Amino acid sequence: MIYITRRERFSAAHRLFRKEWSNEKNLKIFGNCSNPNWHGHNYILYVTIKGEVKPDLGYLTDLKELSRIIREYVIDRIDHRNINLDVDFMAGRLASTENLTIAIWEVLQPQVKQLGVELHCIKLEETENNFVEYYGI
Amino acid sequence: MIYITRRERFSAAHRLFRKEWSNEKNLKIFGNCSNPNWHGHNYILYVTIKGEVKPDLGYLTDLKELSRIIREYVIDRIDHRNINLDVDFMAGRLASTENLTIAIWEVLQPQVKQLGVELHCIKLEETENNFVEYYGI
Amino acid sequence: MIYITRRERFSAAHRLFRKEWSNEKNLKIFGNCSNPNWHGHNYILYVTIKGEVKPDLGYLTDLKELSRIIREYVIDRIDHRNINLDVDFMAGRLASTENLTIAIWEVLQPQVKQLGVELHCIKLEETENNFVEYYGI
Amino acid sequence: MIYITRRERFSAAHRLFRKEWSNEKNLKIFGNCSNPNWHGHNYILYVTIKGEVKPDLGYLTDLKELSRIIREYVIDRIDHRNINLDVDFMAGRLASTENLTIAIWEVLQPQVKQLGVELHCIKLEETENNFVEYYGI
Amino acid sequence: MIYITRRERFSAAHRLFRKEWSNEKNLKIFGNCSNPNWHGHNYILYVTIKGEVKPDLGYLTDLKELSRIIREYVIDRIDHRNINLDVDFMAGRLASTENLTIAIWEVLQPQVKQLGVELHCIKLEETENNFVEYYGI
Amino acid sequence: MIYITRRERFSAAHRLFRKEWSNEKNLKIFGNCSNPNWHGHNYILYVTIKGEVKPDLGYLTDLKELSRIIREYVIDRIDHRNINLDVDFMAGRLASTENLTIAIWEVLQPQVKQLGVELHCIKLEETENNFVEYYGI
Repeated sequence: MIYITRRERFSAAHRLFRKEWSNEKNLKIFGNCSNPNWHGHNYILYVTIKGEVKPDLGYLTDLKELSRIIREYVIDRIDHRNINLDVDFMAGRLASTENLTIAIWEVLQPQVKQLGVELHCIKLEETENNFVEYYGI
Repeated sequence: MIYITRRERFSAAHRLFRKEWSNEKNLKIFGNCSNPNWHGHNYILYVTIKGEVKPDLGYLTDLKELSRIIREYVIDRIDHRNINLDVDFMAGRLASTENLTIAIWEVLQPQVKQLGVELHCIKLEETENNFVEYYGI
Repeated sequence: MIYITRRERFSAAHRLFRKEWSNEKNLKIFGNCSNPNWHGHNYILYVTIKGEVKPDLGYLTDLKELSRIIREYVIDRIDHRNINLDVDFMAGRLASTENLTIAIWEVLQPQVKQLGVELHCIKLEETENNFVEYYGI
Repeated sequence: MIYITRRERFSAAHRLFRKEWSNEKNLKIFGNCSNPNWHGHNYILYVTIKGEVKPDLGYLTDLKELSRIIREYVIDRIDHRNINLDVDFMAGRLASTENLTIAIWEVLQPQVKQLGVELHCIKLEETENNFVEYYGI
Repeated sequence: MIYITRRERFSAAHRLFRKEWSNEKNLKIFGNCSNPNWHGHNYILYVTIKGEVKPDLGYLTDLKELSRIIREYVIDRIDHRNINLDVDFMAGRLASTENLTIAIWEVLQPQVKQLGVELHCIKLEETENNFVEYYGI
Repeated sequence: MIYITRRERFSAAHRLFRKEWSNEKNLKIFGNCSNPNWHGHNYILYVTIKGEVKPDLGYLTDLKELSRIIREYVIDRIDHRNINLDVDFMAGRLASTENLTIAIWEVLQPQVKQLGVELHCIKLEETENNFVEYYGI
């Protein structure tokens, strides 16, 4: 069993905001992360897959193919957009890094399976001081 | 003459947008950097000052003081905000990294002068692949 | 189950030194890491917690709260200090990165528990070429 | 149980190439990674070992000793060389990052055992966007 | 006057080698950098341009355009290739980082001029410990 | 004229301390940087030299030679030591990053000259947020 990781990046706006609450309550709970006019980040996404090395090819899967899938299903739908307003796979979810990491797992897991490998971990860095990891369990 | 640099960070939303143009023209000229619902970045700011080492203190200036000024005059006014809507020193300016770098120079230059040193350079990283430098001339 | 990591930094002096041994034996065993007049590092600390995402808040725990705990219980007691002489939670322990990592686990584990989450890993970087990880088992 | 990681670096040339196939088929399958005149990388190698802290020494093992082993058995045999042509422990293996990671595990595992500790993970970065991890199972 | 920098990357093989000398003399002078079977690096290229901010656009030049030029005239001709054998703009030049930096300047300078801005600096990192800068004078 | 930079690292203890003042005054002026039991850093040193490319060798100077000089004259005298107590070239100087940068310039400038090149800049990083540059004028 071997693990290979592809790193991709996207820049997006968001705010922590719960519709059921007033702006005031959101600001009280989430602080400046709930600023009504949004803020944003350069997110760094690490997608780790696992499986056996293919003896004739020497690799787990063609990384260009993995990169294409990440771009088509994640980056192209979120880069230079607003996570709360523009990203269909985040509709109805609070736009936290935790929820975004889980949503990216759900989007990529079936696609990665079609490559004949298994998704192992989604890691998402929001800033140089904070990152989230999700293993699907 | 010695140069000392302080690094600070902020996260903000913005879009490249010129009020005189329609949304369509903005999108045509600026591409996805003009997405109407904003996007955002983790900006990294480097403030370089220059001057003579003070013989009795061994330093150019107290870096805690320099850091306090950068935070009070720049970070606290832009971090977790919208550059186009919330930042008074960017009012009336197109929210590009170039203009933001120049505006930060203009905000910090008189404050740094009061420390008895000279502002040498503002460097602003928008992503790991792009940064702007301004020397005030 | 989701994992979230907070990164903090501190600068401290230390030496590898075993009281039961002479200075000569310490220098023979530990080399220049045992230099009698100390040396020091910029340590980088990664604290990883795990648990369930709180549905109404979208996060595992308030990261500002986690950061406050790390600062109060670790950073404020070790930053700009001497690990061998000034840090009470290292008293009686050889000032290695391994022992420091375990000590930070022991200090943080009960505090993190009070946040309603579980401490998963303490990772401590001593230099860009060396780091230690401890999972409490 | 504690985990300690040592980072080392090497620069090498390689190409993805399967002898059983023509140059054309290699280029079709592996793309520009199979360029006949080679290309190269700055590889970053992370060697993680695990075990118990030695009570009298405060560490798992002498990191200088671990570093010496990595240099003698890996770096000195691959740095500034051609992975396909010059590296005996890669003879007969397709020069992929996956196979190189496994080969480094096989070379280091018995040497690390002689230090009285256990090899836990080999991580090998080929570029800032791609890395492989192998745990020996 | 404002300065903006674009970062791009390429991976290539090379060797330090002077045709007029024997293999032995090359190895004696250049050490393992002259290994006959090549070695390689992940080069990091920083292209800095300078000029005035365009008032209506808020930028110096469209960075996508600058990136396109760097890719077309440099990256596509050198990435995943052999600097000594495959790169026409290095023909007849010793494949050192210094000469490569100057050659990239000569290739990009007229192209950048057509964007209406001025090339200011080419910086090329060969490893994390070595980099070269050239200002065209 | 071309510029080439070599990066080296050292770890050292220090405190900001002026002998003419009491401990209390030192702590009042320099804050926790003056903690009597020392603290320390992983310093990163960048040495930039300039000159003409040698036509037959393709480089400015042999970087291994430059690295040897930096190690012999700086790193070996400061690494894993106390800047205030152990480093002869800092004797009588307040152990600030500014003074250390200037002292390293003074130590290296004549040595670099003997290589037939000119010292251009000493850059010294104390932490990821602070660095000093000195050009000898």
